[in-house]
Amino acid sequence: MLADTLASLSPVDDALTSAVQARLDNLTKPPGSLGRLESLALALAGMSGSEQPSVTPPGVIVFAADHGVAEEGVSAFPQEVTVQMVANFAAGGAAINVFARQIGARLEVVDVGMKGGVEGEGVVIDKVRPGTANFAREDAMSLAEAERAIEVGIRGAARSHEAGCRCLIVGEMGIANTTASSAVLAALSGLPASRLVGLGTGIAPARLAHKAAVIEGALAARGADPSQPLEVLAKLGGLEIAAMAGAYLGAAARRMPILVDGFIATVAALVACRLAPALRGYLIFAHRSCEPGHDVALELLEAESLLDLELRLGEGTGAALAFPLLEAACRMLAEMATFASAGVASGGTEA
Amino acid sequence: MLADTLASLSPVDDALTSAVQARLDNLTKPPGSLGRLESLALALAGMSGSEQPSVTPPGVIVFAADHGVAEEGVSAFPQEVTVQMVANFAAGGAAINVFARQIGARLEVVDVGMKGGVEGEGVVIDKVRPGTANFAREDAMSLAEAERAIEVGIRGAARSHEAGCRCLIVGEMGIANTTASSAVLAALSGLPASRLVGLGTGIAPARLAHKAAVIEGALAARGADPSQPLEVLAKLGGLEIAAMAGAYLGAAARRMPILVDGFIATVAALVACRLAPALRGYLIFAHRSCEPGHDVALELLEAESLLDLELRLGEGTGAALAFPLLEAACRMLAEMATFASAGVASGGTEA
Repeated sequence: MLADTLASLSPVDDALTSAVQARLDNLTKPPGSLGRLESLALALAGMSGSEQPSVTPPGVIVFAADHGVAEEGVSAFPQEVTVQMVANFAAGGAAINVFARQIGARLEVVDVGMKGGVEGEGVVIDKVRPGTANFAREDAMSLAEAERAIEVGIRGAARSHEAGCRCLIVGEMGIANTTASSAVLAALSGLPASRLVGLGTGIAPARLAHKAAVIEGALAARGADPSQPLEVLAKLGGLEIAAMAGAYLGAAARRMPILVDGFIATVAALVACRLAPALRGYLIFAHRSCEPGHDVALELLEAESLLDLELRLGEGTGAALAFPLLEAACRMLAEMATFASAGVASGGTEA
Repeated sequence: MLADTLASLSPVDDALTSAVQARLDNLTKPPGSLGRLESLALALAGMSGSEQPSVTPPGVIVFAADHGVAEEGVSAFPQEVTVQMVANFAAGGAAINVFARQIGARLEVVDVGMKGGVEGEGVVIDKVRPGTANFAREDAMSLAEAERAIEVGIRGAARSHEAGCRCLIVGEMGIANTTASSAVLAALSGLPASRLVGLGTGIAPARLAHKAAVIEGALAARGADPSQPLEVLAKLGGLEIAAMAGAYLGAAARRMPILVDGFIATVAALVACRLAPALRGYLIFAHRSCEPGHDVALELLEAESLLDLELRLGEGTGAALAFPLLEAACRMLAEMATFASAGVASGGTEA
């Protein structure tokens, strides 16, 4: 399934660019005056292969999994919180529930590898294994498990597409997953963990050095080959991070625009782009997280985020908050009058 | 009416801050992890005097007027475009129509001083005079006219409030109004016009120096006292700028949160805050405009904008695009579960 998805992923379509740019310049506003919204409209047209792209309704998938490395004391929250928060998602009380409702999104939670279980409306059980192993001591998972977790994500994207979603937001829940993401990013970037790690959900600043040391020790012990993204993911990553990468690939293969959330989501995107560089054209980056590693990951992807609101929650919340900007870009193209249709003098040609 | 409004404007209510902060910290997320959304929730509670503030539905008022200084060749568009664009607003085809529909806003267009006239649904005629005089040659308007234009804005805010709007967005349309705004800002800040002027709707870069020279000449000729905001507004401002200032004052007197658009809207806010410093507590700044003067005006108001999307359109569009963040802040407070109600271990106390 992964191989098929990689094979069916086509680059975005630049053939529409000049037609969409001409339309943007004819809308009743000074040319270029809607700034990054105009760039978004161009990008969305290329992703969806339509001069009138649409991103509604959006789909949100939150992948949840546990991390063996949590036992190294790298998180401010106990591991049980992964399951407890998924129960909260099922009951509709978490931040991503609130913001998904606001944007009219289809929300699905996928248990790709929690230690415990939660059943409930909107929770899909597609568990590869009950949490990763502690990568400070052994590989987080096998290569086969990493590939299976990616395929969980591909299936999720397919469900969202079949349900009619026209844009995909992917979130995560997994205590200790900023540690796993930082480890993956350190391996892929070659940068020291101390430059990448942040406070995550809110560890005491004094524990940052411990978090970095755990990662540095694991990098040395696991010896993942940075040119092999699947190996890096298996040795240092997480099941939900792999599933996120898979969801991106599955969405892009279906020409769905993808709105990437924060740090963990961006690291998953980096892994997925190493597997399939054409994916990059389908990615829009929603916000700039507080985690120091996020700037590094964004730079490696040559990406600039839409929002900078000091968010550090995850779950897909930053992407859900940015989604109305994508909707506005589509509505601008579809609903604004042109200078000719409105009888407005176009002027503004001197700039 | 202006005096009554100034007298009835009370400072925002800080008494609720600790209760709202406690609720924010009990919601199922790491404390502080929703960043500036949490600050917004606190601010909105103080403005509206409620632990559960609401900003829906929003009201958008676009004030339109003409500027005598347009005859100095400071805009890329001919003056007729003011009337033509108001006809476009009435027909529903402009960017602000599109974004106002997206956020479910009540949209009203007020002719506070166009040279021509437009009638249509949602267009209110409350004309003080048919355009200002050319302030390069004489005062733009009299003190009495400036005060009447402010009162047009106060009436607009009152209509929005009576129609049930719980947040106010104010936009503008007026060819040459970045020139008038830059002149007002130069007078109030004491900074040279060359540091403040920008390309507006898109003049050729070579015309920037002319735009600055027109303003510098007017500043010397008009001699407005920078400590007298009404005098500055009358000598160098515009009718729609005065109306915007009035709308802010009227909204704040009714405890409506105000989402301030770009450069022109921020200059109007600066004038209004000089008239009533307590207004500042009711202002949220939506976006950072391309106009160089915007950063100066924001700094004078000690304000930081929510978005930075390289917008330079006006009409209230940047504020309409930022509005979903205010709605999200309110929904977060109203709809998220608490650690206790969701049975989630709170942890995270070490940060």
